Amino acid sequence: MSRRSLPVPDLFAAACDHDRAALARLLSLLERGDDEARQISRLAHPRSGNGYLVGYTGAPGAGKSTLTSATIGHVRSLGLELAVLAIDPSSPFTGGAILGDRVRMQDHATDPGVFIRSMATRGHLGGLSLATPEAARLMDAVGKPWTIIETVGVGQVEVEIAGKADTTVVVVNPGWGDSVQANKAGLMEIADVFVINKADRKGADETRRDLEQMLDLSDLPHDAWRPPILACVAVDGAGVPELWDTIGRHRAFITDSGELARRRSFRIREELREIVARRLEQRARELTGGSRWDELGEQVVARQVDPWSAADEMLAGVIA
Amino acid sequence: MSRRSLPVPDLFAAACDHDRAALARLLSLLERGDDEARQISRLAHPRSGNGYLVGYTGAPGAGKSTLTSATIGHVRSLGLELAVLAIDPSSPFTGGAILGDRVRMQDHATDPGVFIRSMATRGHLGGLSLATPEAARLMDAVGKPWTIIETVGVGQVEVEIAGKADTTVVVVNPGWGDSVQANKAGLMEIADVFVINKADRKGADETRRDLEQMLDLSDLPHDAWRPPILACVAVDGAGVPELWDTIGRHRAFITDSGELARRRSFRIREELREIVARRLEQRARELTGGSRWDELGEQVVARQVDPWSAADEMLAGVIA
Repeated sequence: MSRRSLPVPDLFAAACDHDRAALARLLSLLERGDDEARQISRLAHPRSGNGYLVGYTGAPGAGKSTLTSATIGHVRSLGLELAVLAIDPSSPFTGGAILGDRVRMQDHATDPGVFIRSMATRGHLGGLSLATPEAARLMDAVGKPWTIIETVGVGQVEVEIAGKADTTVVVVNPGWGDSVQANKAGLMEIADVFVINKADRKGADETRRDLEQMLDLSDLPHDAWRPPILACVAVDGAGVPELWDTIGRHRAFITDSGELARRRSFRIREELREIVARRLEQRARELTGGSRWDELGEQVVARQVDPWSAADEMLAGVIA
Repeated sequence: MSRRSLPVPDLFAAACDHDRAALARLLSLLERGDDEARQISRLAHPRSGNGYLVGYTGAPGAGKSTLTSATIGHVRSLGLELAVLAIDPSSPFTGGAILGDRVRMQDHATDPGVFIRSMATRGHLGGLSLATPEAARLMDAVGKPWTIIETVGVGQVEVEIAGKADTTVVVVNPGWGDSVQANKAGLMEIADVFVINKADRKGADETRRDLEQMLDLSDLPHDAWRPPILACVAVDGAGVPELWDTIGRHRAFITDSGELARRRSFRIREELREIVARRLEQRARELTGGSRWDELGEQVVARQVDPWSAADEMLAGVIA
């Protein structure tokens, strides 16, 4: 029996037994989001809760993949296993994975202690919001003690995903102000740790002052975690051990303060809300395939009916 | 009676009569997405269809706002009126508008022939997808012959929005490869016109060759529109008249070929689908506010129930 046709429980058992191909196959099923995705979630949920989820996010070109790659090297040198999920926000059209990232990750491709995967959704709006927590839960359930989720820190869905990690690392560059102008506030809100990557370039000190100032203005309670600002040169690994130590310190801090439990509880409730919404959306898609839909669409295009009234008509009798 | 408390039909009539404050108020109501948003849509839909929608998109820092500002100057010099909607993808947390953009736009703030607005959604996922076409329709309905929608070209929602214009202009910079690595394919798919902004910097020729090559590879049918590649230096306005002419040529091309009608029909059907999904999501939110929800949430957090089974229970009897 080929692995492709193995039933989900067998794949799950194999993945728990360190079978990487089985794990990869489970992730593909999660991305598709069919009934099998649901089955995976059911198996993974009761077994999860021991792993720790770290988010790396920042503007395109900030060097997140290089930093992730350097982190993998460091974490492996400590003898720890880990998983990396690179979220590809790119195209609703192509759903393509990021070639460049994959190339950079190749150093680690043959290491059995590292599992790396680029995720994409071929589907509809909100696909990533649902598939990503499922994928993270699966990594946790099959025994990965650490999972890094790497996302581009621009775009409403992507920032949301990044902000749902246990520890969120925001990667900036000297002169970051320009490249993330549209998104500074969002990134400030979700950051637990700041990393100034490419810190050997000019403007690093200014960027640090800029960040400190923004933190000063953000009125943190006196007993809160103040996001540390680290400097890195990811291409040669400088600063990466310090980053990993800081992530560990943040983990300890939020574990002791009860914040970790609160975050996880909040996150799972958000996910539940998302699932309910998505199930309803699916129902809407079923509805909007028929000929009555085509007819109504024509009328809206011809401006005989407005979109909201057409929606009313489609929904009549659907929502109990 | 203050404008704030005017009923929607009065506001709409005032906006059609060039009352900018009334128009701004209508946009705020659209952003909120309440019943009044629906009422606005009903009024605007039958009166729309004469305006033309242009999308400007590109990576953060590509100079979209500067280019928009220069375009406004040029369009006004031709004696045309226009509206600009700057979509702020930033924060699901702050919902803030982009100060920088507003500052750059100030040149035009007192010109009655220009209406500029930064849009944000304070709400949930998909908010922008719904509010943006509504806002564009409103501009059209109150008589704006041209509307430019400016979005950051990263993130799944934002690329989708940009791709829904009649003509989509993708703004890149010399050396764009790095900054949009995660998103090249998505931007290539939606581009009707490429603009290399900051074309006085080094690497512009290489970027042009890069784009030409990608277009060569994309296997366009021989009678299709091949996206022209223009060069601009938006800060001093160089290349902007040529850009505007090219937009006009694209408009004529897709009008003659029937592509414009097809695009608009597709767009309105997509919007209808989105509304149906959103109405169902709203229903989900109503559902997930109660005490049964809290209880189920607790059980999921405690790993007694998996999220999908909890969702099933919430939805039982809800979907007819």
